Parts: sequence; structure tokens; C-alpha cells
Amino acid sequence: MSQIMPPAHPFDDDKLKEECGVFGVVGVADAANFVALGLHALQHRGQEAGGIVTHHTDTGFHQVRRMGLVRDNFTSASMMEKLPGGIGIGHVRYSTAGAKGQTNMRDVQPFFGEFSMGGAAIAHNGNITNALSLRKELIERGSIFQSTSDSECIIHLMARSMGRNIPDRMEEALRKVEGAFSVVAMTRTKLIGCRDPLGVRPLVLGKIGDGWVLASETCALDIIGAEFVREIEAGEMVVATERGVESHFPFRRQKSRFCIFEHVYFSRPDSQLGGRSVYETREAIGRELAKEAPVDADLVCPVPDSGTPAAIGYSLESGIPYAMGIIRNNYMGRTFIEPTEQIRNMGVRLKLNVNRALIKGKRVILVDDSVVRGTTSRKIKEMILDAGAAEVHFRIASPPTAWPCFYGVDTPEREKLLAATMSEDEMCKHLGVDSLRFISLDGLYRAVGEAKGRDANAPAYCDACFSGEYPVAPSDMIEQGFRSKQAAE
Amino acid sequence: MSQIMPPAHPFDDDKLKEECGVFGVVGVADAANFVALGLHALQHRGQEAGGIVTHHTDTGFHQVRRMGLVRDNFTSASMMEKLPGGIGIGHVRYSTAGAKGQTNMRDVQPFFGEFSMGGAAIAHNGNITNALSLRKELIERGSIFQSTSDSECIIHLMARSMGRNIPDRMEEALRKVEGAFSVVAMTRTKLIGCRDPLGVRPLVLGKIGDGWVLASETCALDIIGAEFVREIEAGEMVVATERGVESHFPFRRQKSRFCIFEHVYFSRPDSQLGGRSVYETREAIGRELAKEAPVDADLVCPVPDSGTPAAIGYSLESGIPYAMGIIRNNYMGRTFIEPTEQIRNMGVRLKLNVNRALIKGKRVILVDDSVVRGTTSRKIKEMILDAGAAEVHFRIASPPTAWPCFYGVDTPEREKLLAATMSEDEMCKHLGVDSLRFISLDGLYRAVGEAKGRDANAPAYCDACFSGEYPVAPSDMIEQGFRSKQAAE
Amino acid sequence: MSQIMPPAHPFDDDKLKEECGVFGVVGVADAANFVALGLHALQHRGQEAGGIVTHHTDTGFHQVRRMGLVRDNFTSASMMEKLPGGIGIGHVRYSTAGAKGQTNMRDVQPFFGEFSMGGAAIAHNGNITNALSLRKELIERGSIFQSTSDSECIIHLMARSMGRNIPDRMEEALRKVEGAFSVVAMTRTKLIGCRDPLGVRPLVLGKIGDGWVLASETCALDIIGAEFVREIEAGEMVVATERGVESHFPFRRQKSRFCIFEHVYFSRPDSQLGGRSVYETREAIGRELAKEAPVDADLVCPVPDSGTPAAIGYSLESGIPYAMGIIRNNYMGRTFIEPTEQIRNMGVRLKLNVNRALIKGKRVILVDDSVVRGTTSRKIKEMILDAGAAEVHFRIASPPTAWPCFYGVDTPEREKLLAATMSEDEMCKHLGVDSLRFISLDGLYRAVGEAKGRDANAPAYCDACFSGEYPVAPSDMIEQGFRSKQAAE
Amino acid sequence: MSQIMPPAHPFDDDKLKEECGVFGVVGVADAANFVALGLHALQHRGQEAGGIVTHHTDTGFHQVRRMGLVRDNFTSASMMEKLPGGIGIGHVRYSTAGAKGQTNMRDVQPFFGEFSMGGAAIAHNGNITNALSLRKELIERGSIFQSTSDSECIIHLMARSMGRNIPDRMEEALRKVEGAFSVVAMTRTKLIGCRDPLGVRPLVLGKIGDGWVLASETCALDIIGAEFVREIEAGEMVVATERGVESHFPFRRQKSRFCIFEHVYFSRPDSQLGGRSVYETREAIGRELAKEAPVDADLVCPVPDSGTPAAIGYSLESGIPYAMGIIRNNYMGRTFIEPTEQIRNMGVRLKLNVNRALIKGKRVILVDDSVVRGTTSRKIKEMILDAGAAEVHFRIASPPTAWPCFYGVDTPEREKLLAATMSEDEMCKHLGVDSLRFISLDGLYRAVGEAKGRDANAPAYCDACFSGEYPVAPSDMIEQGFRSKQAAE
Repeated sequence: MSQIMPPAHPFDDDKLKEECGVFGVVGVADAANFVALGLHALQHRGQEAGGIVTHHTDTGFHQVRRMGLVRDNFTSASMMEKLPGGIGIGHVRYSTAGAKGQTNMRDVQPFFGEFSMGGAAIAHNGNITNALSLRKELIERGSIFQSTSDSECIIHLMARSMGRNIPDRMEEALRKVEGAFSVVAMTRTKLIGCRDPLGVRPLVLGKIGDGWVLASETCALDIIGAEFVREIEAGEMVVATERGVESHFPFRRQKSRFCIFEHVYFSRPDSQLGGRSVYETREAIGRELAKEAPVDADLVCPVPDSGTPAAIGYSLESGIPYAMGIIRNNYMGRTFIEPTEQIRNMGVRLKLNVNRALIKGKRVILVDDSVVRGTTSRKIKEMILDAGAAEVHFRIASPPTAWPCFYGVDTPEREKLLAATMSEDEMCKHLGVDSLRFISLDGLYRAVGEAKGRDANAPAYCDACFSGEYPVAPSDMIEQGFRSKQAAE
Repeated sequence: MSQIMPPAHPFDDDKLKEECGVFGVVGVADAANFVALGLHALQHRGQEAGGIVTHHTDTGFHQVRRMGLVRDNFTSASMMEKLPGGIGIGHVRYSTAGAKGQTNMRDVQPFFGEFSMGGAAIAHNGNITNALSLRKELIERGSIFQSTSDSECIIHLMARSMGRNIPDRMEEALRKVEGAFSVVAMTRTKLIGCRDPLGVRPLVLGKIGDGWVLASETCALDIIGAEFVREIEAGEMVVATERGVESHFPFRRQKSRFCIFEHVYFSRPDSQLGGRSVYETREAIGRELAKEAPVDADLVCPVPDSGTPAAIGYSLESGIPYAMGIIRNNYMGRTFIEPTEQIRNMGVRLKLNVNRALIKGKRVILVDDSVVRGTTSRKIKEMILDAGAAEVHFRIASPPTAWPCFYGVDTPEREKLLAATMSEDEMCKHLGVDSLRFISLDGLYRAVGEAKGRDANAPAYCDACFSGEYPVAPSDMIEQGFRSKQAAE
Repeated sequence: MSQIMPPAHPFDDDKLKEECGVFGVVGVADAANFVALGLHALQHRGQEAGGIVTHHTDTGFHQVRRMGLVRDNFTSASMMEKLPGGIGIGHVRYSTAGAKGQTNMRDVQPFFGEFSMGGAAIAHNGNITNALSLRKELIERGSIFQSTSDSECIIHLMARSMGRNIPDRMEEALRKVEGAFSVVAMTRTKLIGCRDPLGVRPLVLGKIGDGWVLASETCALDIIGAEFVREIEAGEMVVATERGVESHFPFRRQKSRFCIFEHVYFSRPDSQLGGRSVYETREAIGRELAKEAPVDADLVCPVPDSGTPAAIGYSLESGIPYAMGIIRNNYMGRTFIEPTEQIRNMGVRLKLNVNRALIKGKRVILVDDSVVRGTTSRKIKEMILDAGAAEVHFRIASPPTAWPCFYGVDTPEREKLLAATMSEDEMCKHLGVDSLRFISLDGLYRAVGEAKGRDANAPAYCDACFSGEYPVAPSDMIEQGFRSKQAAE
Repeated sequence: MSQIMPPAHPFDDDKLKEECGVFGVVGVADAANFVALGLHALQHRGQEAGGIVTHHTDTGFHQVRRMGLVRDNFTSASMMEKLPGGIGIGHVRYSTAGAKGQTNMRDVQPFFGEFSMGGAAIAHNGNITNALSLRKELIERGSIFQSTSDSECIIHLMARSMGRNIPDRMEEALRKVEGAFSVVAMTRTKLIGCRDPLGVRPLVLGKIGDGWVLASETCALDIIGAEFVREIEAGEMVVATERGVESHFPFRRQKSRFCIFEHVYFSRPDSQLGGRSVYETREAIGRELAKEAPVDADLVCPVPDSGTPAAIGYSLESGIPYAMGIIRNNYMGRTFIEPTEQIRNMGVRLKLNVNRALIKGKRVILVDDSVVRGTTSRKIKEMILDAGAAEVHFRIASPPTAWPCFYGVDTPEREKLLAATMSEDEMCKHLGVDSLRFISLDGLYRAVGEAKGRDANAPAYCDACFSGEYPVAPSDMIEQGFRSKQAAE
């Protein structure tokens, strides 16, 4: 049931992709303005589509969903007039856990439903690992799904709940859901936020005037001038109104397992996590990497932009000068529409160019955040050698990515992950570089603040993409034949 | 005669703006692909509009002109089908020297004209300083102008020339023109490039297979895999065909006066100028600045992205750690269409965010490339202080910008230039920072490779925006009342 | 929950509006082509939006819904590629019985639902008179409505049915529904058609090759070259597959009450109803009118285009020459978008012009199909007099429209119907014409083939708009305070 | 030099096409409103594109040109704001005499030029028969053409004229031009109209308040409520300002030769020509045809819509009842974009449907205005026979079209004209109808008011398409090898 093929990105970005960002605000004038700004700050978490729902006392609920960037869709005065009211939520997404290979306006969140006690809208970051079985059961009982999104289950579970009010219905719905989720929802007067029991995906609380804000990251508070109050806790549900914020813990309490890859790549460097800027954490990863994997060279260069903080850390620790050996084209976007073969073949060149005059004859350390399929790494290596570099050493600011994520991150199938089938040495040869080193999992834990490294019995983070240890069993995937490391052993 | 109001950029970028980039290629299959890629690499020289003209032996000349980015307009297979042939030129532009305050498809280059011996297209980077009087004279003689652009004069002068072939007509036309220009033109078989006698604007020659390329910068050669041959000389005209390149010097020879601001800001850091990467030159400017204007501090932070190389140089010279204290939103573009008041007021916040957790309590050196009106500098200082910085020191990688440019750069009127009315100390107070220092003009000359600094009697560069010494009298402007420094003295 | 204001038609068309046309086909190659053509032929039944659903054995269900005309949306090869398969249904609509004053893509039919035994799509012409109470009940039980349309109830009732297959579920759903409906639905393999027990809205069956067609009117069979088989009977449900057509009668049998206004205005003149072309019936109405209401005059002129057949009949019966005194602009459409005040004020002049040279000094009989609010009639009379006509006599091919329709026709509120508040004489004075006569209700019945006129005890047609006698009680409307003539008496 | 392929009309309309309509107004508030309305009334003269130029005392000239219909482009308030001022002209066009097979925004009129004494805009209906040689000469002297349109010559000739004011320059320019033209032009204050010496194309003068109007037809005066003053005479130039209208006769006086096909087909039936409505003339043609070519039959049916008035005349004269045997789909337009093969093959069925129930078993006279290639006539005959007609008799309201028009009408090449290669009998067999008769040329002259028929020595009309006698030698075409009947004899 879909009509528009997705604007397929012809260039292999070769990165894991966060699938969503969420934002909500209550108790302000013209909430949609704040939602739009917040989503703009969270755009790195999803560029494919976005949506906003608001509620105005006189005119009820209003909703707009659009393919494309926030700045292109949600900043005009005429658009804001379509979204009146003092409470609103929004969502940006990269793609959905729904139908593969196609994009559908219907899958764009927030989802809205009218219940007997009034309407509610919901926006979801994460992935429901038992969505298929929930969906099957709901359809059997007469629910009509409008999207292919796993998130739509939540609103149907709410519609069928006997709860007296919407927060109660949401609690009941979320208790039936497995997986990772940070949810922002709204009724006519209440802004609701909830994180799954492990707190895999991020969600923070902010304050602006007498109003309250929920957002995936603190950078979305900064842009609207809101004050950062605290992170929502794992397993916590908050209900914010103009009168204040209530906190509930509807789930059985568990030790939190926040996604460690948020530190490595997903979150913006200017966001705060655990009291420190993500930038500083990444610089610390670079320093740790320099200690673990030193090498003699002339220059430390980042693969822009995500490798930059770790490269700076590596340079500061090693004393080897930092330099911009690769320059990124700022006018690259997601919108090369049906390019010619010739342009498609340009691939990474459309986005990156080597600083030839600088690189020539130098021994270069390239710092990147991760290696997924390795396709981009190969091309960058070729560009650097083609420019006359004497040596190329890759240093990677995360351990080998060997397992897919089922908690709201777009990962290739396991067999396409370079680290799933090759050792570090084999990858080095495959990429054809002079040396290749990943940070160790313990080193990464140290850099993010766990002085003793990873506690194998009770890891402080979800690191399934590195370790293969899934804190929540991905039941839909297991039914489809996936075997986790635990299962394999 | 205009219909479309420009997509006014609501945010004061507070930068000088290069007005154009030009590109041409001959002797390749499907020239338009190469032109599109070259223009994409030159997009930083003009984002408002672009155009491509090609010629195919069977179907003649083809032209497409569009508002917006190259990647959005000129990469689809269906578009490339409209631009067949083995020779082509293209143009990207920021805005025109034509009608103020309005954008017109008709002003988008290249311009095309049919002459008795065949057609020709022309694309122009620079500004013709006697365009108004030329235009008046041409209209009196019966020429009908289709655009408000100064560049259209050239093609009308060519149409009226008695020259036997198009290069001859172009020579004759360009001899009547004053100002700064790097021109790329084409006939059915010839690719023509020409720089004004002072060589104010850049133009380079490249080779790809058996074909030839002309481009504003070397980064446009890199993207298509062309080899950099040499810079076109000041006052040189080259005519390239499949058989080779001829060189002519149609003007009285003069000492060249290349635009020094290309080193400071306009050119891409990965382009080469004078045998060195622009990145290295900017790093050298930062080192020179650290020597001239040292200060005790905790961090050196660039104002992204243009201050980055100089900040790295400043850090390397001073030993003060380099850090990304300000983070740029990668999803910012030129397309906030008619935003609400509230969003408009966000201004620089939509584009930049301070890394609060990093900056708090620190003494920060902020390195920027230039100060034009000072509005952005003020806002950045406020953001930094608001984040809790202990001290803020501005270091600027160019001398005070005190004079407008009339050679193809968009500058505010003189009275709006902060440095036109204030001393360095006054500017420091005005901006409210702990210290403010600009590199000296001599220091800048040293950094760009003139070991002895600026030779006041025969400066090696055009530095009119700093010195007020205009190497070509801006005659149209003088007629309208402008008084240069020379005139004033 | 709506974002786009409707493209308000600035010109008071002053007609009753049929709200929908439906079409379906099974057993052909590329069904979407046929559906598009059929909908194009039915465009007069709804111009605001259209939708098509198809099913392909390999790729499942496909759906496209669009605002605007069929020819603009559904004829391109690229669109047809999005709608593969050998079975399909479609819908054109004028507006919905849903949210007033707003248009919403979500209200565009067909509606689609996935059930446990597979998907189904449904398109509906008519109006469900108990939709509000059904909707309320369904929401209380957990159904989430995506549209404001009354028709969506049907698919939710189907989703909740325990029926073993989709035709069974549809029977069960339709038995809960009151009002007028001609429904076309499809599963993966079955094309289903159903008319309400009174057969108020039309639906015909056709044959093309080995395939079957359902359509609102026979003109949609003609365009694809299908053979007209028969009308679906009142209260009949047919299930067509490649193997043949089954017929069911799921409702209590009742005497049919087909909408008499389909004869007067809604249906296309080249469609067949009851074995005769609608054109001939309208010509007969004109003849009957000439007998009932003769007048001495020079010319009989239609109000184009709907008055044309009756005018021809009037002329043939009376012997007064027929002439085109009013000319219609063929380039008029529904798309005057936000016109200026001046253009808006032109009103009917944008669409009609009087043939001044012809009309001058003549006694003119103007034949129109109906008078609703009378606004257009006044303007036409003014135009005719302004052109110098000596006398103007209005003859109307239907009885006075004094009651709103609740069975799928867009009627103004009762108080806005001219005939609800004025007698024929008062209307004549109000319009300022020399005479005004409507055909009698008995005369209309005679013209449509009931030789004895209307049987007051068991009328053969639904004529509620003329008589105020509603064959199905409009329960939602009664709950909202509407009093029918029966109730009033 | 073109980028957009025309929205090719997939259906062979098989009609001669008028190429343009022109309109101008001076001395009113918001002239653009009037121009838009006038062009809407003239849309039948050109549906492909339209343009408006206005002049406002404060802001100068304004121009908008668009592909598509007037109602879609020129009626919104926001568009009207782009066209301020109290004087304006406009143009609608079917296609150009320029580049074949392609459509170019640059060819859309009015054309604008800035001269030393101010700007002027010009819109042209007709065709300049020596445009190619004029263009060649102008290019040799340095004029740069922006379009492929023959009409652009006029403005270049004006630019090069030494005349002291624009009307003088226009006189001088038009004296160099051969062919048929009705020109409407404007300066800042003057509205200028001019017809070629033979007055081939129409142009009328109207009055509205204190302002003046020029239009191709009187229907464009009616729509804005302007009073019809008189037709501009052959060879007359009028200059209208707020102070009044001056008349000039710049050319050698000749006997007028108005296009007789305007009576047959081009003009709207509600326009007046020679003091009579075009409708009445066409009815008279039908009466004449009934006298010349009677036949026994049951029904007279028009081929809609252009055959309607003549069919009414034929019916009135013959006494055979008039009936609508063929119904036209009102939602047909020009916009079937890249239809599928299947839809393309529907051809005439998309537009016309036979009233099957009416036609069955009847002897039918079909009245059409003309036969060009005969392709549509064949298809209509097939539809009629397929519906079961007993006999089909074609009666054509014009003589056989045997010669191409070079005066502003789009005609197929001569060999594609059915009448160029076949006699009436051969055509009858070719079309496969029971009889086929054309009105005689003398009969046509009688019907348009020449009681004695055609005066072979001094025909009152241009009838070259029937007679092959060209009143102005088509010199460009002759140079390209065309041999007129005169030349052939």
C-alpha cells in the first residue's frame, strides 16, 4: 500500500543511522514554532520526513506531516498558522521499521487517534521488537492499520485499553510492548514522555518559562533557549502540564542500558549526556585510541565530520599535528534525484575532496567513528593515496561493528557488516591500508566514564552492535530466523 | 521587468559574498555531466542560481537555467538529456550586479547570442565597472537587453563586433570593458577562457583525457578527476579545442593584482592557489596572527566553518589546545521561506550552537576569518558568554574590512562596514569582548607568501577592501558619487 | 485534523451536486487504465478528488489518492506503473459528508483495510444517514478513524465482523448501515458491488472480454468499450471474479426508489437509465414542460449546458426556434485560485456570455434544469436583459427544489432553497422575469416513463428534494434537529 | 535553444488552429485584472501559454509569462500584485511560427524592449511571412534574438528605428514587415493597435469608463463589461491614451481581405463580426448547406462543439429534428501528460461519446465545421456506426481545405490535407460514409453576407486555405520551396 518510491540516496553513506528524533512542548504560546526549532536541531536523527501535531483550545487538534527537511517544510508563517495552540509534539525520522524499500506519507509520525475521552498523538523513537505479533493480534480483533510502522501498535493498544484517561491507557499499552522506545505523546492538555525500562534511547526534560519541554537531546533545548532540567530515567513516565510535572514508574525497575553508540556517533557533539558534552567524550575516545594504538606519522586527519572530535583527541594525546586533509562539500544533501550513471559513479567525491597539496608525501592517520560495510573507507583510502600520501593509517573510534541493532537503528544485514566476517587484520588487508586499529570495547567504556571498563556481568550500556549481547530479545526477528550471539552459544 | 522576489535569506550571514563561479569543458562525452559536477564543487561561490549551455553537433545549442542549487537542478538523467553534446559551460551565481533587491531568471548566466557566424555562450565571474555607460550606449544603438546583469554587455558588444570569428569578437568586446572578469565562453567547437589584465578573479586550466577544462578553482578539477595544468595568466585569453590550447594576450600587459580575499575566505580550502593549498595558507595566517596577537587562554575555537584553518594555525603556533566550542547545524540551508517572526529572531542560533558543557568557565580565543558588519560577531559573543565562558578573545584572520569591493563581491555600503567607522579598540568595545585583534595587512601578505609584506608602491594583490586602493577606477560608482580613498586624498 | 483549506470555488454554481462516482473492473490486463478511463467518464459526478486501488498477484495492493481531475492525475504511464494488477476500483468525489469547510486527503476514497484474511478496498457513492452514531460506537470499542467520511464506518464494521470472508463481512457491515449507497469493493480476487435496499443511487454492470465492470453510469462502460449487461438491482450484492458473477440479496426486499434527480441533472445525457438515454428523457421533460407551460416567444434558449436537452424538447414541442443565446466558456474550470476581488465579482460572466447580437429585441424562453438558491438565475436574467431582450420567460425542467437531500447530494440548508420559502409567483417576482414555470411533479413522472404520474401511496422514485417525503429517515440529521415534512405533519 | 518539450496533445484534434489572441487596456485601475479576463475570454485562440505586461507610474514595467491557461496562471490576487498599473497588454498563444516541435518560455509574448526613450511591449496575432530574411539581416547587424518567434523581429526593428517616439518606431517597423498581423502594443502611457493592410486577422476597439480596450474579438469586451466601439480598419493604427484615440493609416491603402475562416471556426459564436453574431453567420452557413446538399434522414446531429450552430441551421432549414447524438466530456483538457499506450489509443473516445440509445437504427446527418486530415471524421463515423446508426451523412460547413495558411494559423503540410489529394467523392469513400458534402465557396460567401457569392476578381475575404490564392506572397515559404496555386498555374 504505497505510492511513492523513496528518494533513494545514491551514495553509500556507510554509517549506522539513528531512525528518529522526538520533541514536545507544553505551556507556551505558539507551540509549533518551538517544535519546529527543536526538530531542526534534531534533524541529524532523521532527514527523510517530519511531522507536527498541536492542539488549540478553540480549534482542536492540527496535524501536518511532510517528506523532507524541517527547514523546508515547517518554518513558514503560513505553515505555522496551520498548527495553532500552546501544546505540540513532533517527530523527524530517517526511515521506518515498516515496509522495506518504500516510503509512505502514512508512516510519518506523530500518529493521531481519537478515543472516546478525546484525541491523543504519539511520536516514537526506537523500535518495538514484538510489533509483528502485536499487529497480527490487533488486526484479528478489528483494528485497521494505516501505516506499516511498528509504532502504530501503541496507539491501537491505547484505543483498545479500558483506562480512564490517556496516560493510563498509554501505560497499559507500553507494558505490552517490548523493545526500545522513547515516546513523546500529547492529549489536549498533557505532554507525556516515557522511556523503556532499559532506557536504550535518550530523552531529556527541559523548562522554558512556565512551560515544559521533552526532547531526544539537549541541543534541542539550547536552540529554543530552554533550560536543561534532567534526563528522563529508564522506565520513567512523566506527565507535564502547565501546572507541573508528575513522574511515574509503570514498569518493573531494571538497571539501565543506554545505547553506547549515542556517545560514538548518533548524538550531536554539543548535546550533553551524563553531565558531559558529547564532544568531550569523543575527544576522550580519541585520546584513548592514541594510547591503545599509537603510530608514527606526520598528520592526524579526521574523516569529516563525524571523525573530527576523536581526531582532535588523538592529535592532542599523540602530539602529531591535526589537519584537515579531507574537505567536505557543504552543498551536498540528500537530494540527488535520479542522477546520471556518471554522476552516481562519483560517489564519495561529490561529498569529500582530498586536500591534495597538503597530503602529498605525508604519512597520514585517518580517524573515523566506525566501519560498517567498509565501502566508504576503501574509497577514502583510494582518494588519499591518489593524492600522493606516503602512508595511510586508519584509527576507528569504536570497536568493530559486528551485530545488527534492533532498537531503532538502521543497520545492514549481519553478513554485510565487515566485522561480522573478518578479523582486524583481514579488514586491514581488505581496505589496503598501512594499518587499521579499532578502539577496544573496554577502552570505549573507559572513555565514556566507566573507569574499570566494561563489566561483563552487568554492562552499563547496550553494546549489542559490538558484543552481540542483546539486552531485550528481538522476538520478531528471532521468529524470522535471526540467531543472536547468546542463542548461538 | 521582474517577477520573482528573491528567496531572501532571513539570517544576516555577515560575510562578503563571492558572486560567481564559472566552469567549462571541451572534448569529452556528455559534457553537461562534467559541468554539473564542476559547478557543484564551485557551489560555495554562488548558491542562488545556476545555468549550463552545451552544444551538440546534431541538435545545436542547448541551455537550462534554474534558481537553486546544482545538486537539486542539474544531476538528474532527464535533465542531462536536455543538455547533450561534447562541449559545455556553466555558471553559479550568488546575485547580480543588476537590479537590486530582485532576482530574475533572465539574469541567470550563461548568456547566449546567435551571431551571423554562429552562436556563442558566455559566463562571467567578476564585475564590469563601466557597465552602465556601455549599456546606455548599446541601447541607443538598438540593442535589446534581456537582463539587468552587467555581464550581458559583453555579448552585445560581441554581436556588434565586425570580428571574423567569435574569439576575435570576444577580444574586441573585452577590450571595451573595464573591471574584473574571469570569463568562460564557448562556440560550437571552441572553449574560451579569459582573465582581465590584472587577473583579479581566479581561473585555472585542467586536462581530462583529450579534453580541456576551465574552472574558477582547482577543486572543480578534482571532482571530475581532471589534472591541474596551470592558472590562466592575468590578461590571457585561451582558446581550447579538441586539438589543443592556444594562448593570446589581447590587453596591454600589467602586473597582476589577484584578489587577496580569495586566500582569506572565498576559495575552498582544498583548492590550490600559487602552488599551495588554500588550507595551508589559512593555517599560516592563523600562525601569523598568533605571533602578532598572542593572548593567554584555555581554548582556541573557530567560528565554523570559515575560521577553522586559521584557528588550527593559531593553536599550533600558540600551543593552546584547539577545540570545537561552537557546533554548526549541517541542515541549515538558504531555504527558510517566509519564516515566522519567532523563527526569524532565532537568527544565528538556527545555524550555530555553543558547546555549553565544554565552554563553561573557560577563557576562549575565537578565530574568525573577517568582521564585516559585526552583527554575527556580537551574537556569537553573547552565546559564548551565556554558556558561561570566563573570557572571550576575538582574533580575526584578515585586516579590518573598511572599503566596498566593486570587482564581483557583494559588500554592504561603506557606512555599514564596522571598520569604516571604528578603530580596533572601538570595535572591541562595541562587540563587548575581552580583546579583539585583526591580522595586519603586512602579516597577511607574509602569510600568503610575500616574505617582505606589502610593497606599498606595487602591491602584489588587490586589497582594496582593506586598503581602499582600487587598482581599476570603479567608474560607474564614481559617477554615482562614490569617493575612493585615492580620490579622497 | 486537517491541513489544507479546500480550493473554494468562488462562483456560486447554484446547482445540487452529486457527491461521487464509483467504478471497478476485474479480469483485465492493467486494470488501472480502465479505472482511470471510467473515472474520467464519471468526472461530472465529482471533480474535487479521486483515488484508485489495484491488486497485483506479486506485489499486493496499491493505492493512489489525489486532489484534482482524473486526467491530471491518473493518465501518465508513470502513474499507471504505480497501480499494477488485473483488478481495481476507483472513486471520484465532489466533497464529503465529513468535516465541513475543509478538504482532506484522508477523506479521499477508496478506503483500504487489512483484515486477518486479507485486505479489502471500498468506494462508496451515497450517504450513510446513521454514520454519526455508528462512528461513536466504533470509537468506544477501539476503532481509530483516519477520515471524517461517513463511508469509513463500512470498513471498520467489516474489520470487526466475524464473517469468514470479505463478501460476508461486507454484507454484515452494510446491514448495520442506513441510508443510500452504491458500493464498489474489491479483495485480492473479487470485485463486489452493492446497492442499498431502495436502490437510490445508480450502479450498472458491464462486460469487457472475460472481465467484469461495475460503474455508476453506462457512459463509463462506453469509454472502455465494455458491453452494458444490466443495472444492479435495489438491494442486490454482486460478486464478480474471472469465473463469473454471483448475485445475493442480503437485505429485506423493498420496492425500489431510484433518485429521480439522476434523470433531471446528475447523470450524463449519453448514459442509459431504464432502457432509454438520459438525453431522450430530458428532451421528453422539455416537451412535457412545453405542454404544461406554453408561452409565445421568438427563441427557446438553454442555460448551458444542463438545460440543453430540455430546451431542444421544448422547441420541438412548441415549434419555437431553438438557439444558443448563451455561450459557455470552455476554458472555465474549478481552478480560479484565490482570485482578486474584481475577478471574483465577475461571477457567472467568467463562465457564460450572452450572444448579444442574437438576443437583442427578442422574446426569449430560457430553459434550465432546476432552481436551487436562484442566485445564478438572477444573474442570467440580468445578462439577458442587459443584452436587450424584449421578454424573458424561465421554464424549469424540474419541480421546485424545496427540501435538502441526505442521500449523497450536496444541498444547501433548507432555508437557502428558494422554493422552501416562496411560491412560484413569489419566485417569479424575486427573479424579475416575465414568467416562471416549473414542471409539475406529475409531469416529471410522466416524462420519466410513469404514464399515470406519481403514485402518492407508493412513489416509484425518491423525490424527497421536491416532495419532502424521505424514504429512509435521516436519523443523524433528525438527532441534530432536522424536521422532515412527514415529521412536521 | 530550448529546454522544455511541449505538452504534446496526444489526441489528433484535426482542426486548423488559430495561433493567438491579443488584448490591451489603458485608463483603468488595476489593468491586469482586465487583461486577465479578456485573455480568458480569448482562450479559444490559444491555450498553450499566455503573458501580460503592465506599467505602473511608480514601479515601471512588469511582466509575467506562463505556460498553461489564463485561469490557472493569472487570476490569483498574488499574481495580480506582480502586475500593477493602469495600462497593460496580454497575449495567449497556441504555438509559434518559431522552432518546430518545441515550446519555449522565451517564445511567449508579449515581447518587451527597452529603447533610449523608454520601454515598449508588443503582442502579435498573425504571421510575418518575411520573418526569416528580416531575422537574418538583423542578426548580421548585431541584434541578439531571445526567441524563435517571428514576432520578435518587430521589436528589434523598433529598437533600430530612428523614430522619435514609439508609435513612430512601430510604424517604421511594421512597414518593413510582410504578412498578416494584428498587433497590440504599449508604452508607459499609450496603448497602440494596428492591423496589417489587408486586415487578415481581427482587432476591435472598446470603451470602458474613461479607458480604452483593444481585443481580438468582441467577446473579450463583453466579459469586462466594455462597450463595443468599432473594428479597427485594415491598415489602421490607433494610439489610445487616457485623453482619447488617434487614428493613423501608415500603409498604402488596399481592399481588405479578412480571414473567412474566422466566421467558420476561429471566432467565438458570441463575438460580433460585421454587425452580426458569429453564431448567426454559422446558422446561416448551415441553412445554406441544407439548401445545397439536402438528404433524407431522421436526425441532424452536430459534431460538438464547433459544428453545433451549423447543425441547428441545417435542422431549421430542412425540418429534420436536431438532436445531441454525440456528447462531449466537459473535463477533457489539454493535459493528458505522457499517457499510457492504452489511454492514448482511446483517442477521440476520451472526448466524445455517442448517445447509443438515441442513435440506434437512425439515419443521421452529422454536421461538422471542416475536414482537415480526416482522421477524426473517420473515428466519429466508426463510433456512430458502432452504436447502430442506419446511415451516416456528413455535411461540412466549409469548402474543402486544400491549402495551408501562412497568416497565423497552424495547418498541416499540404500533402496531409485530405482535400489536397482527393475529390469530394474520393473523400466520401475514404471516410466510409453514406454521403459527404461540403458547402461551396460561393455558398459560404453568401452565408457570410456576400449576396452574389465570391467575386473571383476581387474576393472580399482571404480564402487561401480553400482557393489557394494567397493575397500576400508567403516569401519565406516560397524561398523554402512552397509553390502556391498562382505560382503553379
